[in-house]
Amino acid sequence: MRIALDAMGGDNAPHEIVMGAVEALKKEADCEVLLVGRQAEIEAVLDAEKPDIDRERLPILHAEEVIRMGESPVDALRKKKDNSITKGLGAVRQGKADAFVGAGNTGAVVGGATLLWKLIPGVRRAGIAVPLGTRGNSSLVVDVGANIHCKPRHLLHYGMMAAIYSEHVLGEKEPRIALLNIGSEDSKGNTLVKETQALFEASPLNFVGHCEGGEIFDKKAEVVVCEGFVGNVVLKVSEGLAETMHAQFEEIVGGRVSSDENAGMAEHIKKFRRATDYAEIGGGALLGVNGICIISHGRSGRRAIGNAISLAAKFVRADAPGKIEAGVDALRVDS
Amino acid sequence: MRIALDAMGGDNAPHEIVMGAVEALKKEADCEVLLVGRQAEIEAVLDAEKPDIDRERLPILHAEEVIRMGESPVDALRKKKDNSITKGLGAVRQGKADAFVGAGNTGAVVGGATLLWKLIPGVRRAGIAVPLGTRGNSSLVVDVGANIHCKPRHLLHYGMMAAIYSEHVLGEKEPRIALLNIGSEDSKGNTLVKETQALFEASPLNFVGHCEGGEIFDKKAEVVVCEGFVGNVVLKVSEGLAETMHAQFEEIVGGRVSSDENAGMAEHIKKFRRATDYAEIGGGALLGVNGICIISHGRSGRRAIGNAISLAAKFVRADAPGKIEAGVDALRVDS
Repeated sequence: MRIALDAMGGDNAPHEIVMGAVEALKKEADCEVLLVGRQAEIEAVLDAEKPDIDRERLPILHAEEVIRMGESPVDALRKKKDNSITKGLGAVRQGKADAFVGAGNTGAVVGGATLLWKLIPGVRRAGIAVPLGTRGNSSLVVDVGANIHCKPRHLLHYGMMAAIYSEHVLGEKEPRIALLNIGSEDSKGNTLVKETQALFEASPLNFVGHCEGGEIFDKKAEVVVCEGFVGNVVLKVSEGLAETMHAQFEEIVGGRVSSDENAGMAEHIKKFRRATDYAEIGGGALLGVNGICIISHGRSGRRAIGNAISLAAKFVRADAPGKIEAGVDALRVDS
Repeated sequence: MRIALDAMGGDNAPHEIVMGAVEALKKEADCEVLLVGRQAEIEAVLDAEKPDIDRERLPILHAEEVIRMGESPVDALRKKKDNSITKGLGAVRQGKADAFVGAGNTGAVVGGATLLWKLIPGVRRAGIAVPLGTRGNSSLVVDVGANIHCKPRHLLHYGMMAAIYSEHVLGEKEPRIALLNIGSEDSKGNTLVKETQALFEASPLNFVGHCEGGEIFDKKAEVVVCEGFVGNVVLKVSEGLAETMHAQFEEIVGGRVSSDENAGMAEHIKKFRRATDYAEIGGGALLGVNGICIISHGRSGRRAIGNAISLAAKFVRADAPGKIEAGVDALRVDS
């Protein structure tokens, strides 16, 4: 299979992004990565790093323009016709790649994928699902910011699509779906939560009720559904707090380990850092579009990009979009 | 001064709550704590623990009934006339205490304080402000769940009131106020955020713009304003993730320290735990009511309750309600 990668996307492009592709190819024997972006800059990275990878597995698709992080997605997509996001998404539409991975301007990726690939019939809004929690014990939170004008049926679809992701890509058995709320009683919550709850209860989905913010990390459910404003705050708070705790840990405990030359302790500390490090996740999956699209953090380094490509490959092997299309059909919610 | 404490509130009542009062009295020489609840149960704790404190500094106000955590606040306040929350709040109204601290049913405390004490003239909704972040580097987040039907002017008042808390109770100089949003650009955000931003910009308050979820922990602003649904999720996610990281840390690193008999390391690890432990905070402050009310976490132990009482004492010394009343007046927003 072939994964298209926006080589120009994110704070560490192109160097870390290109090296992320190299990391992925070492693990994914059946993959090629189509590097999309400025050919000369991409080649400069490969020439300098000389990775131990067959260069034929790293084809390049030249794109002259780059959409920057702060740009207005709508304006940028319109004015910069030859940009690496549009070109990478286009390669997937033309059948030249099986999935797209990008760490650049999230709005441009969501907007571009929705425009070029279109939504799956019956789905009204695309949403981004991200696993949150510590390694081996995480819940998929959806939506983390693609859609801040959510209606109950958008949330119903998010739950269904993320449950397919959970089951077929992550291998969870009969994933449970919960609705993020501010208390467990039925009387709690705003209008959106109450109306969405009614829709879930009337559906054939494996809905288990409410989930409070802290219960995301207890794996009360494999899938936690919320509207995009709240979900984005959850994502950013989680990342920010984990980073802050890592920094505090480093300041108080970190430095002492090497000076003590306590190798066993250093190993445990490394394990702790990795278990609670969001770079392990790779990225969020854009659900609801006709295609596989993984959106990585703007600050991604090579390890995060490598993991994002591996995640995209899992989606391809699982035929997740086909299963989601069947899932929408089975829900039969009038859109 | 005298702080009324709901001795029956929270998962660890009455034992840990009563012992929390003892902890506070050791630190706060000018304080008495009025223990409100079932006299026999409170006395049983004091008789068993025999704390080294003058019992005259721990007067008891008997209340026969207890409002449980899961109860509907409205029903409970109506049916259980002789409950410890209403009785403690009543003692403050009658001038028999200067502040109230409770770790019980949050809805009952908010509802009871609003009914008995009334709102400060001009304020339309009470909100709860909590410091989030690591010790020595936290932002006050308001509202964390008192009001999930927020209007722009509720949020304006929350910002102003929390800024007074920040300046006069926490000692911050010219505290900055930010609005929680999902991006830093002005184009981002939902209708509530955009309308609230316009109100802040037209006000004389020290408003510095947007703050993303993760930036709460960078102290981009001393005060971060959001509506109660989002704020409650932020609070619970922060608590849940910090606990999860502590547990993971314990599992991977914790046990090894004592077996290694590395006392220096154990000291650092203890320091890390405390710096990122929410029990250090004490509780949230209910802002907008005519009185001082600190709401502690339901799971509070004696250390958290002791800190909550100390926080209440700081509010009394700073005359925070008087300053808030003057602040509302100065804002001159038509309610």
